[in-house]
Amino acid sequence: MNMNAPTVFPAPVSSSGSIALTMSPRIRRSPFYEATVRDGVTHFTVYNKMLMPISFGDLGAELYRLMQGVSMWDVSVERQVEVSGPDAHACVQYLSARDLTKMKVGQGKYVAMCDHAGRLLNDPILLKLSDRYWFSLADSDMLLWVRAVAAEKGFDVTVCEPDVSPLAVQGPLAEDVIASLFGESVRAIKYFGCVETQLDDIPLVICRSGWSKQGGFELFLRDGAKGDELWNRVKEAGQPFGIGPGAPNHVERVVSGLLSWGGDTTPDSNPFEANMGKYVDVDTPVDYIGKAVLQKVAKEGPARLFVGMLLDGDAPSAWPLTERIPVTSNGKQVGTMSAVVYSPRMARTIGLAQIDRLVVESGVRLEVHSPLGVQGAVTTPLPFI
Amino acid sequence: MNMNAPTVFPAPVSSSGSIALTMSPRIRRSPFYEATVRDGVTHFTVYNKMLMPISFGDLGAELYRLMQGVSMWDVSVERQVEVSGPDAHACVQYLSARDLTKMKVGQGKYVAMCDHAGRLLNDPILLKLSDRYWFSLADSDMLLWVRAVAAEKGFDVTVCEPDVSPLAVQGPLAEDVIASLFGESVRAIKYFGCVETQLDDIPLVICRSGWSKQGGFELFLRDGAKGDELWNRVKEAGQPFGIGPGAPNHVERVVSGLLSWGGDTTPDSNPFEANMGKYVDVDTPVDYIGKAVLQKVAKEGPARLFVGMLLDGDAPSAWPLTERIPVTSNGKQVGTMSAVVYSPRMARTIGLAQIDRLVVESGVRLEVHSPLGVQGAVTTPLPFI
Repeated sequence: MNMNAPTVFPAPVSSSGSIALTMSPRIRRSPFYEATVRDGVTHFTVYNKMLMPISFGDLGAELYRLMQGVSMWDVSVERQVEVSGPDAHACVQYLSARDLTKMKVGQGKYVAMCDHAGRLLNDPILLKLSDRYWFSLADSDMLLWVRAVAAEKGFDVTVCEPDVSPLAVQGPLAEDVIASLFGESVRAIKYFGCVETQLDDIPLVICRSGWSKQGGFELFLRDGAKGDELWNRVKEAGQPFGIGPGAPNHVERVVSGLLSWGGDTTPDSNPFEANMGKYVDVDTPVDYIGKAVLQKVAKEGPARLFVGMLLDGDAPSAWPLTERIPVTSNGKQVGTMSAVVYSPRMARTIGLAQIDRLVVESGVRLEVHSPLGVQGAVTTPLPFI
Repeated sequence: MNMNAPTVFPAPVSSSGSIALTMSPRIRRSPFYEATVRDGVTHFTVYNKMLMPISFGDLGAELYRLMQGVSMWDVSVERQVEVSGPDAHACVQYLSARDLTKMKVGQGKYVAMCDHAGRLLNDPILLKLSDRYWFSLADSDMLLWVRAVAAEKGFDVTVCEPDVSPLAVQGPLAEDVIASLFGESVRAIKYFGCVETQLDDIPLVICRSGWSKQGGFELFLRDGAKGDELWNRVKEAGQPFGIGPGAPNHVERVVSGLLSWGGDTTPDSNPFEANMGKYVDVDTPVDYIGKAVLQKVAKEGPARLFVGMLLDGDAPSAWPLTERIPVTSNGKQVGTMSAVVYSPRMARTIGLAQIDRLVVESGVRLEVHSPLGVQGAVTTPLPFI
């Protein structure tokens, strides 16, 4: 047994894991901001130029709720880029490296948005609503990209960032909470399926989605003035199920191999290097930005792979890893690692890395270079569990 | 005398003015990060997805150095979008709402980058180097915008974010520090003039620029591995002049009326509403994105103006203002305020606001709605001093 192994649940973020952020009108707040403050939020990050809760002071309890019960998260930072108008489908298709021909109203799809060189710009969930599309975004200003492409390409569309703010309800009991609010019919919603509805006078879209593998829904609030009301309704409905506040959980997402765009990817990563290859359609008649490059990558194989790492010993750094660290093979750099955690379920230290494909395929042992020293490691496919 | 007026220099940021930010590889560090930590940085913001120092714990001393001596700032977050290749000039012109026909190598210009609806996307300094252009950016992902426009419009250019990180040296003694490092010839550099040079083996571009009105230069470091070396050289050369670490100063920038894009502007602001009208060329044969809309605004007058505010009493909120607050006239909302400070030199409380133009022109008294109550105010042109 490793005597230095962390305890089963990680400690709250230490002072060394956070810094003092000066607030500013340049960094927006969420419609749920006041509610999260009342409920004791302790740590934030900045995502899409908005404050996002990261912890409410007890990461252990937050992880436990997500894995065993139900947790509610302010994920308003998942901003939407809305595309509507006569050419909406053509525009959205051109922006997505996936064949959307058969996409139906009420469906969502995980799509790679790439530039003309095949670089991954964002990995949104694309929702098809009755009269519009939403790209529900990771951390990049895709409003700029979509508006530029739409205008220069001459699509007859309206592109905007609507007043839409997702609240996630995640965990094995999430469906019960959502059913108690909206009725039993929500249990029939498929993965990434979305329904436009209301909760009394609160307009929203329910989607079976969320940045965890524990199941759940996201409530896309369509009126920012009603953030407090929605937060309180979900909190109240969740009481019988032991709901509590939380946030996307670093340990869970690493174990589940969920991609953090901009954290796990580098500015030149293509979707095959981000483990998104199965969502990229290269053998399709539809055209989209970056297609020729992605076809070439699909044929020749990507230069790098996004993989799991199994470390020999302790976590090489405090939670969370605050910058990418080098990974070498016999002293030669072969990639970088972007996350490392201790997994209670696996009882070992694991991580995420972008590593040269030929090195991954060779199966050689690697060295991880943390500020605390060098550790041995091997790669493993994602997800871990 | 107002007994509640703040002391001459504001107190260090209080715990209420900052929050705990969890660090992540998604938020990059600057090449000067380690140096700023050694020199005692206490507060950060996140800007262009990077950490930016905001204070070293004594805002009073930092303001004094900027106003009376010399201060050095890590402003690496001013990222560059580089445009090079055969169509570089045509591409940069199309992206800038200003006639660049006569722009010469070694010149910089303050430009409005707008979208097709005339909305202000960024307010960079554009530098023309011997073989490339740099947009030196405020807080938005213009790499996405420029790449999309260049590719869809078919310009034969290369667009990238180069390894370039500005270090600002600001204050009345800044020129002496820069001259002691680079020689007396730097005194001849005009405002926004730029020179490609080296400091021993450190490649950089010197520009007479910086986000203050106290004079100074920015050293655009062209090798991120040499951040520590450049920081130490500037620190050493500045010792005889009393140099110390600092950051763009909120009090000074408000008094000087310097625009904080994304803080003072709203997503739908056009450049005339951001006090940038004098930098927008509407009577020019050159074409650029948004020109037709901007011509119309120039002719009819903008709906809103970016103005100074003179408040009757105390600052309505702790430094800094953490979100936009409403401004009314006889109970009707006529704009929002994005900054408020106590100016020691003016011995009064002042602020920045975006207010309906007709209201500004009428000169009526306004009411500012802070969390601490309502205060009377009048508008005034910028800059204050």
